[in-house]
Amino acid sequence: MANGLPDPPCGLLTADAARSLVDSVDAFLFDCDGVIWKGDKLIEGVPEAMELLRKLGKKLVFVTNNSRKSRRQYSKKFKSLGLEVTEEEIFTSSFAAAMFLKLNHFPPEKKVYVVGEDGILEELKLAGFECFGGPEDGNKNIKLEADFYFEHDKSVGAVVVGLDQYFNYYKMQYARICISENPGCLFIATNRDPTGHMTSAQEWPGAGTMVAAVSCSVQKEPIVVGKPSSFLMDFLLKSFNLETSRMCMVGDRLDTDILFGQNTGCKTLLVLSGCTALPELLDASNKIHPDLYTYSVYDLVGLLQK
Amino acid sequence: MANGLPDPPCGLLTADAARSLVDSVDAFLFDCDGVIWKGDKLIEGVPEAMELLRKLGKKLVFVTNNSRKSRRQYSKKFKSLGLEVTEEEIFTSSFAAAMFLKLNHFPPEKKVYVVGEDGILEELKLAGFECFGGPEDGNKNIKLEADFYFEHDKSVGAVVVGLDQYFNYYKMQYARICISENPGCLFIATNRDPTGHMTSAQEWPGAGTMVAAVSCSVQKEPIVVGKPSSFLMDFLLKSFNLETSRMCMVGDRLDTDILFGQNTGCKTLLVLSGCTALPELLDASNKIHPDLYTYSVYDLVGLLQK
Repeated sequence: MANGLPDPPCGLLTADAARSLVDSVDAFLFDCDGVIWKGDKLIEGVPEAMELLRKLGKKLVFVTNNSRKSRRQYSKKFKSLGLEVTEEEIFTSSFAAAMFLKLNHFPPEKKVYVVGEDGILEELKLAGFECFGGPEDGNKNIKLEADFYFEHDKSVGAVVVGLDQYFNYYKMQYARICISENPGCLFIATNRDPTGHMTSAQEWPGAGTMVAAVSCSVQKEPIVVGKPSSFLMDFLLKSFNLETSRMCMVGDRLDTDILFGQNTGCKTLLVLSGCTALPELLDASNKIHPDLYTYSVYDLVGLLQK
Repeated sequence: MANGLPDPPCGLLTADAARSLVDSVDAFLFDCDGVIWKGDKLIEGVPEAMELLRKLGKKLVFVTNNSRKSRRQYSKKFKSLGLEVTEEEIFTSSFAAAMFLKLNHFPPEKKVYVVGEDGILEELKLAGFECFGGPEDGNKNIKLEADFYFEHDKSVGAVVVGLDQYFNYYKMQYARICISENPGCLFIATNRDPTGHMTSAQEWPGAGTMVAAVSCSVQKEPIVVGKPSSFLMDFLLKSFNLETSRMCMVGDRLDTDILFGQNTGCKTLLVLSGCTALPELLDASNKIHPDLYTYSVYDLVGLLQK
């Protein structure tokens, strides 16, 4: 109950609900970390679920906030896990950052500074932008000494911040000084996930932590291009002839995946195989309610074959 | 004007105002970065101002959010700049973190994990606590690989986060996992300054940026022991027989120094020699109004000798 109104429906996925869901949608949008895999480990039953949905004529699309890889690199990762997924079926927040700049006619003579990993650099280069930073700046140390002057490139017109396991004070200052001192410099976040399943065994700080640090230093909010922003959906709709009301977003995070689905008019299915545990979903303080929830995508196989 | 009420008084320090200020207070509390020095450079006229105020019988106290040094190390820094200031006259946020644990009877068998620099480790050790992390963990790299498992010490009962020029993903995960997984683990921030004059020529990301990153990853707010929290004032009052209404807080930041002064009932004087520029002070969106403002502490000398 919120404001005296009944909570939106949020039901456990039953055999009936699964059949009705499959009948009412043409496409399934899957988050990856915590849904398809954890780190480099495939989640049990994913190949079977994907095979069944494809057999039922459903379009499968993969929408991930993880900016560490490009679409090409993700396609390779799917292949290495035995799943056949093309680049065109993958929408990453690294790709979203590049497309955001393209759509906004980012001047080709300007450069992009990257706090993040290879995926962002690769997507920016594919889109024709000059960029630097990323892993290369991971070894750069700062010594805060008396007369040290930190130089920066005044032609940087955008800073893109994503997940960065090589995050350091050098990059924090580079990002801060570009955003604060280069007139009109854009501050773009791939996403704001506080944590993520970067390895199979544990959660780790997500891109949201790097974004929070930079955001604090410049006292500005970023433009977010990944989920829950609806930005990626525009590209998805351009690529495929689909209606969002005939899509189902499947994800493990309420504040990104499920909110993204709701923001864009999709049906939503929460899986508990990743970041969200059942008590969190059912807690009174949670205001984001998926249409349905289940333990993992594998449940679709059992339920649809009942 | 806010809510139709006139703004609180906020006047330029004139000769009359300076005399009246000096007559009405027994102690001056000075912030350091941006007031006494910038990085390792003394701000012009500071020795003259300090000498004059001491000659007038005023107690001088130094209250800094900068946790990079301990009280002992700050006393040495003052000496190296030609200023005679004892450890007892210095109140740092690193000291505040140690005193907070002491006052709250932090169990001696528990350990403290530090995201920060030497000053915090030294103050914690002086207070009798076992601590680790800090600069030592600045060289530890993470490789987010498939089966990597990040081990942590389950006896960590508090994480202290301060300014850290060796901030990295290892420390972010260590802090996150202690706060999230060790039952009752405290999350203490020395301060939340977004930026600071760590070198004379430029501003740099402040402790607030490290705190924002950790806070995001654990989805919790920290206990703040530095300014504007009034925590340090308790110790100050225990050390000196003074009333806060007969103190003047002199600082360059509205959201820490001036707010601290106001929170604790001091008179407040903003100097424009550090982080805050005049347009920011006078902007309609600024809701923190010092009693008085001037360009630098040196102005006191000229004005009082008129």
